[in-house]
Amino acid sequence: MNYFSSDFKLGILGGGQLGKMLLTETRKFDIQTYVLDPSDEAPCKIGSNKFFQGSLMDFDTVYNFGKQVDVLTFEIEHVNVAALEKLESEGIKVYPSPATLKQIQNKGDQKDFYIANKIPTADYRRFENLNDLKLAVEEEQILMPFVWKSTEGGYDGNGVKVIRSAESFEGLPDVQCIAEVMVPFIHELAVIVTRNPSGEIKTYPVVEMEFHPEANQVEYVICPARIPDAVSEDARDIALKVSEAFNHVGLLAVEMFRTEDDQIVVNEVAPRPHNSGHYSIEASYTSQFEQHLRAILDLPLGNTDSKAAGIMVNLVGAEGYSGNVVYENIEKILGQDGVTPHIYGKKQTRPFRKMGHVTIVNEDINEARRIAEEVKNSIKVISN
Amino acid sequence: MNYFSSDFKLGILGGGQLGKMLLTETRKFDIQTYVLDPSDEAPCKIGSNKFFQGSLMDFDTVYNFGKQVDVLTFEIEHVNVAALEKLESEGIKVYPSPATLKQIQNKGDQKDFYIANKIPTADYRRFENLNDLKLAVEEEQILMPFVWKSTEGGYDGNGVKVIRSAESFEGLPDVQCIAEVMVPFIHELAVIVTRNPSGEIKTYPVVEMEFHPEANQVEYVICPARIPDAVSEDARDIALKVSEAFNHVGLLAVEMFRTEDDQIVVNEVAPRPHNSGHYSIEASYTSQFEQHLRAILDLPLGNTDSKAAGIMVNLVGAEGYSGNVVYENIEKILGQDGVTPHIYGKKQTRPFRKMGHVTIVNEDINEARRIAEEVKNSIKVISN
Repeated sequence: MNYFSSDFKLGILGGGQLGKMLLTETRKFDIQTYVLDPSDEAPCKIGSNKFFQGSLMDFDTVYNFGKQVDVLTFEIEHVNVAALEKLESEGIKVYPSPATLKQIQNKGDQKDFYIANKIPTADYRRFENLNDLKLAVEEEQILMPFVWKSTEGGYDGNGVKVIRSAESFEGLPDVQCIAEVMVPFIHELAVIVTRNPSGEIKTYPVVEMEFHPEANQVEYVICPARIPDAVSEDARDIALKVSEAFNHVGLLAVEMFRTEDDQIVVNEVAPRPHNSGHYSIEASYTSQFEQHLRAILDLPLGNTDSKAAGIMVNLVGAEGYSGNVVYENIEKILGQDGVTPHIYGKKQTRPFRKMGHVTIVNEDINEARRIAEEVKNSIKVISN
Repeated sequence: MNYFSSDFKLGILGGGQLGKMLLTETRKFDIQTYVLDPSDEAPCKIGSNKFFQGSLMDFDTVYNFGKQVDVLTFEIEHVNVAALEKLESEGIKVYPSPATLKQIQNKGDQKDFYIANKIPTADYRRFENLNDLKLAVEEEQILMPFVWKSTEGGYDGNGVKVIRSAESFEGLPDVQCIAEVMVPFIHELAVIVTRNPSGEIKTYPVVEMEFHPEANQVEYVICPARIPDAVSEDARDIALKVSEAFNHVGLLAVEMFRTEDDQIVVNEVAPRPHNSGHYSIEASYTSQFEQHLRAILDLPLGNTDSKAAGIMVNLVGAEGYSGNVVYENIEKILGQDGVTPHIYGKKQTRPFRKMGHVTIVNEDINEARRIAEEVKNSIKVISN
């Protein structure tokens, strides 16, 4: 197959920041792209060969879009799977496959899948609705605190809540859900695994999410994770096992906990480029976006080693600001060594909206961490 | 000034591969771009916010284009300088300035400038036309062999010829020219210098052009150059001196010879991102394209150090092939460690047309060189 400067067309469902960073790679290789997104202001309007505005959940819209391309991928899991299945049955290559996506889309099914495949994960129970869960709590079948997760539709922390008392139930939607034991972890880790249709597999190094000591928010994604080698090896092995179980094509980001007794427990997966892999654009020999492209086109996978230590800081909209975005002090952080801002191109900021990220690369991980803190403390996403 | 996700507009004259790689950076920072290029199939048609088809040499076209933007830059020197001067006089920021461009566009003026500024360069004489040069040769004022250069319009080796005998004059255009002494060099080197309007200056490491032993063509651009540190320091110092003399804004690529007795002699300069800096996209903390953008927007300059050794191989159209391009064995080279192809997006190949380049990065420069040779021997730019 001739992908480069040819008539080949790659379709991408979703035109947000993940799609935008994937387009950097399709432009580099001069591979034609068609992008579908509901928003007329999607970041992928620029950089794609053809942009289509439409719903990702509408069968006909997704089906008609998919019929125009040779390979179809997605940057977001919330897409019409029935349309993907029909496209696949008609010979369009869909990567990751609709079968993989179905196993992942529903968090209850995802948990069942881990159990069936002997992958370590936190204990849980599934409930058809909120009332069933409340009853189980009243009957003390489920003990507080625990983690409530909506099985479908959660994204970026939505659809997840720690239930500490009966009051925590307030405002929860009445949907299918799981109640999960809280894992007492000392590190939250992630490993990105890539597979291509020919079966080549590569894992990226283990990354670590460093949390704010009080706010309990991820502040930094750090590569490599500052953990013992033996724990890293365990984490990569388990990520590989998860990847093999799913038999996916493309990227699979495996989020894990390291418990106090050095056990690795799988939290959840995402079958696409992932926030925890953004550092790779600057720090790795092959960025996760190029790697995803290589995988779904069945090209040889690239080297996943790092050229330097990498730390990623998310740029989210500051509280109290809504409107036309302004990146305050961005000139200041550009004056620091090895600092690269990525601005996603969303014109409007809102509190906590993901507006961009900043990568800090340095030979010395401690120096990178020091600069990352300066970046975090300087830049602010506000409105004018 | 607020450049990021704002109404600010950067204009780029020329929409070829240099512009395309610059657009990767403007997209990363979400900076709006307008691009002007004569070709309806220019690589920058995708990735720019607005693309205009028109002549870069036509006063009105360039002037009207420039009036729509806040800062204007160019990826090619052959543009209408009078239009740039008028735009600058009307308050549009033009970087590099028309004054700098004028000093560089004419190779005779460029050589005179080196002499005036005590910058070492090969001895030369200027001639108004071919006949004057021939007379000087007949009268043995000029001894063969020497290098003939057209003072204007030369590009990528056009407009340069070694004159070894009277027969060499055949086919030369009757234009203003210089005759330059052939420098017996052992290395061809280049240094990219960046300056911003605030006066911050940074130099990239010295790179080395490795020539094919027989064909006398550049095969590899290697960073860092495999030369003694003292010679590197000399080369960077001289590049800085050139940069200071021009007082330019943006990138300045300074091409130099290292003579047999370790003297550094300036050959010529280009006031823009340069082929000799393409390695920086993967190998440097800051790519030359991001650096150019930082410079012309008066942002702090980025770290010019390398994360790893980098080698660049040009992909030019193979002899005997014209038509729809096919990159033969590109899958094969993607299977090598640290190999990144850049495909410029020109649909049609022609013998020797620049169609792309490949960067090889590796911790070990010798291993990078070994892989670069495999890349060079594998990939072929042909037509179907």
